[in-house]
Amino acid sequence: MVNGDKDVEILIDRSSQIPIYRQIVARIEEMILGGRLPEGFKLPPERRLAASLEVNRSTVLAAYRELKGLGLIDSHVGRGTLVRAAHPATDHQPSAGDAPGRTQISWRQILGDYQPRIPDPLIRDLLSLAERPDVISLAAGLPASELMPLETIRGLLDTLLTRVGPAVLQHSPTEGLTRLREAISRWLVSRGIPCRSDEVLVLSGSQQGLDLIASELIRAGDEVVVEEPSYIGALPVLTASGARLISVPVDGEGMRTDMLAAILDRRRPRLIYTLPTFQNPSGAVMSLERRQHLLELAARHQVPVLEDDPYSELRYGGARVPSLRALDSTGVVLYLGTFSKIICPGLRIGYMVAPRPVLQQLVLAKQASDLHTNTLGQHLVERFITEGHLEPHLTGLRTAYSAKRDAMARALATAADVLRWQAPEGGFYFWCRMTRRIELSRLLGHAADAGVAFLPGASCFAAEPAESYVRLSFSFPTETQIAEGVGRFVEAVRCTAEDPRALYPEAAGTPPLV
Amino acid sequence: MVNGDKDVEILIDRSSQIPIYRQIVARIEEMILGGRLPEGFKLPPERRLAASLEVNRSTVLAAYRELKGLGLIDSHVGRGTLVRAAHPATDHQPSAGDAPGRTQISWRQILGDYQPRIPDPLIRDLLSLAERPDVISLAAGLPASELMPLETIRGLLDTLLTRVGPAVLQHSPTEGLTRLREAISRWLVSRGIPCRSDEVLVLSGSQQGLDLIASELIRAGDEVVVEEPSYIGALPVLTASGARLISVPVDGEGMRTDMLAAILDRRRPRLIYTLPTFQNPSGAVMSLERRQHLLELAARHQVPVLEDDPYSELRYGGARVPSLRALDSTGVVLYLGTFSKIICPGLRIGYMVAPRPVLQQLVLAKQASDLHTNTLGQHLVERFITEGHLEPHLTGLRTAYSAKRDAMARALATAADVLRWQAPEGGFYFWCRMTRRIELSRLLGHAADAGVAFLPGASCFAAEPAESYVRLSFSFPTETQIAEGVGRFVEAVRCTAEDPRALYPEAAGTPPLV
Repeated sequence: MVNGDKDVEILIDRSSQIPIYRQIVARIEEMILGGRLPEGFKLPPERRLAASLEVNRSTVLAAYRELKGLGLIDSHVGRGTLVRAAHPATDHQPSAGDAPGRTQISWRQILGDYQPRIPDPLIRDLLSLAERPDVISLAAGLPASELMPLETIRGLLDTLLTRVGPAVLQHSPTEGLTRLREAISRWLVSRGIPCRSDEVLVLSGSQQGLDLIASELIRAGDEVVVEEPSYIGALPVLTASGARLISVPVDGEGMRTDMLAAILDRRRPRLIYTLPTFQNPSGAVMSLERRQHLLELAARHQVPVLEDDPYSELRYGGARVPSLRALDSTGVVLYLGTFSKIICPGLRIGYMVAPRPVLQQLVLAKQASDLHTNTLGQHLVERFITEGHLEPHLTGLRTAYSAKRDAMARALATAADVLRWQAPEGGFYFWCRMTRRIELSRLLGHAADAGVAFLPGASCFAAEPAESYVRLSFSFPTETQIAEGVGRFVEAVRCTAEDPRALYPEAAGTPPLV
Repeated sequence: MVNGDKDVEILIDRSSQIPIYRQIVARIEEMILGGRLPEGFKLPPERRLAASLEVNRSTVLAAYRELKGLGLIDSHVGRGTLVRAAHPATDHQPSAGDAPGRTQISWRQILGDYQPRIPDPLIRDLLSLAERPDVISLAAGLPASELMPLETIRGLLDTLLTRVGPAVLQHSPTEGLTRLREAISRWLVSRGIPCRSDEVLVLSGSQQGLDLIASELIRAGDEVVVEEPSYIGALPVLTASGARLISVPVDGEGMRTDMLAAILDRRRPRLIYTLPTFQNPSGAVMSLERRQHLLELAARHQVPVLEDDPYSELRYGGARVPSLRALDSTGVVLYLGTFSKIICPGLRIGYMVAPRPVLQQLVLAKQASDLHTNTLGQHLVERFITEGHLEPHLTGLRTAYSAKRDAMARALATAADVLRWQAPEGGFYFWCRMTRRIELSRLLGHAADAGVAFLPGASCFAAEPAESYVRLSFSFPTETQIAEGVGRFVEAVRCTAEDPRALYPEAAGTPPLV
């Protein structure tokens, strides 16, 4: 690898109409394509380049992101930003009929005509970090592999293919298999959640529910209420539909419905998105009073509520609180569920419960999107529920995850000087506030050196938060790995706190992570 | 069932600002909710109501569609349009905390704020017809259940769960499993299609590829070139993104590239969508000369080509023609493939081959849409290819489908007086032109009476075609069912041709099917 850790000469024309970041992109692209910056060349860190060009760091950040999108550079946590290996759009041998030297199509120009619907998340670097074998990942909310009901599933698949036959491999209705919709409905009713089978739409994972709702209910400029913090996977989907997000803070009793009331008095959002039970990332459970208040407000202002509920069956202590759907008497709630956390995520089986007029419209959107959810997975989940495997399996999960939660609480107990947190009563996450506000990109670097990955809290906010948070997940690692991982993490936090460059620059513009 | 086959009294105010179809909706809704039209009441046929109100038939059609969307009525081929059973948005028992008599939320109003992204296809009635056990379906392009490699799949699943373990049930990368991307790349290269594994994006069925391309490349008002006729599932996805479709006719040698050339001289479409090999529905194969012409035009005008290629491995005669991707030297082609027709559709495994800058953007959109494709199905397809099951399986499929095609050709040979067609060299469909232009909704009725389903050709056109076409699929039924089904269909065509009401009304506005 060429270590070009020196300044790159870039001339900027401040009187030009062309935005500065575009000028930086054009100049670096020219140098890469012209061979002046070879493969593996290490570009200067954003901060340094920004200082030398006397521009905002966010300008350099935007330029590097665009260069990354063009496939010209790659950045790697802990290694910096490097020039990629050169290759044309397709590198296959020319075919017999080719005119030699025919011009390549300019995908850059075609794609550049429009803003991408989903911006490139810097978080991807982090996820690739988590794949390094020496790294303990406390970042993603993966369910534990060792808790998956492998043997039960193997038996059910064998029976399905033997007894049911080709139907399990054939096309199936967009709404989902009737038998599965009935099984989901019965199971929800048994949990106190009213549901008719024709109100159930089977989804290719609950993420699809967010996408369908965003595409059918939201148009550019609409306002959507989200919790602060909120699920990292929901925010880009909502903004991709052109929604302007209104954040309502979450405290120990869930969404601050007093603040929601004030918002609804003045604005007319199209949707309220909430995770009322074991909220991701905060772990908060919305109190019964707040739930009733939320429903009352939503019905009065005629604003639909999307209740995202992946974790409510994973309760390790405390008393159950009814779901919004169970408390709703006005039909204002759309209920989103999934089997990803409680059976396994690889089947991609989620579901939504919605009043028929909504469901009918979502069915058409789903048909256009992927025709239907995979049939084999649907049969499997139906058998898993109907043959009575789910309840005993859940009992086992609660015991095992509860022990993992306790292991994380024990490990974090030594870090009260740098972190504030409360052990959650359910779900997968500890939400930790830093006692000092620090730059999370620095912390990422120190954590990568220490061999641990985490989710920077800023990813869970629509706007830059006033304090520094991290989300630590205890679901995937073993208890031993949790102890070791948290140890490494706390060490990284202490290193960062002692690193003078990592004090959060109060005057800075764009935060390092979105 | 109450048979209310008499006129419904509706007063229309022609001086009102409210569109007439809205007035019809409001009046019928009022009668249904007021109990004057009870559950099961049969509404007058569109044609009769239109005549009695002295409005266009399309106006009544629009009103009935809206009422259907509201969940108030349902229409059934052969049974007419009936008032649905009444039920509130949710019919569960009020919970303890409920304020009695709390107002239901008005989903009708919330949904009515926006035009649905995907219009309700009347074709749905047809698909429900095809589910009647007494009906032989020549409508949908389902692969044959009896040809699915059930035993091989059962063995592979067992091995995967035993040997690979929980990873086959865990989350997996949005791009697709690396092993599967490599297997697809190797398989494509073996078929003469250049492809690197990092150019492969695994999809939840190839339909998702259409959806992602539409959402990332197309913005409202953009023009998109489609073939005429084209794949029924593609047109609504493209128009949902706001695309204006420019249709280029297909003849025996595929898309008329001379006409495409004339269009590209004057317009600047964002995309050319083509099914060059065994086109759905026409069965046409684009000639080598046209393929080269298309690629030359696309590169010169810098317009991406989306090559949809589900059927090319199902060739029963004639010489292979290279895919557009194989002939492309400029990187202008996005190639869309699927295992639905050649392994099974229930796993929902498709893929796209695209230059890296495009792929990177599609990956982000896919992540927002469904995180990733189901992991179990991906492992299964990877094993199926890598262990060498695919090639012998394809040989068997070609023999069996070829025999089905021949059975349909024999059965249709007696119908030269009413239908014109050419046996396809591959794929799943016969595309038949009626010697007389007839109203396809009449034909649907007669066919339903006779116990056979088909796809009305108009569904495959962006604009109303000048002649009447039907698509007959031979893939799913057995050879015996094909003979019987075609016999029933031809009888229905003859009945319709003798039905004076079925002669196509030349002066009419909206066609009966979109």
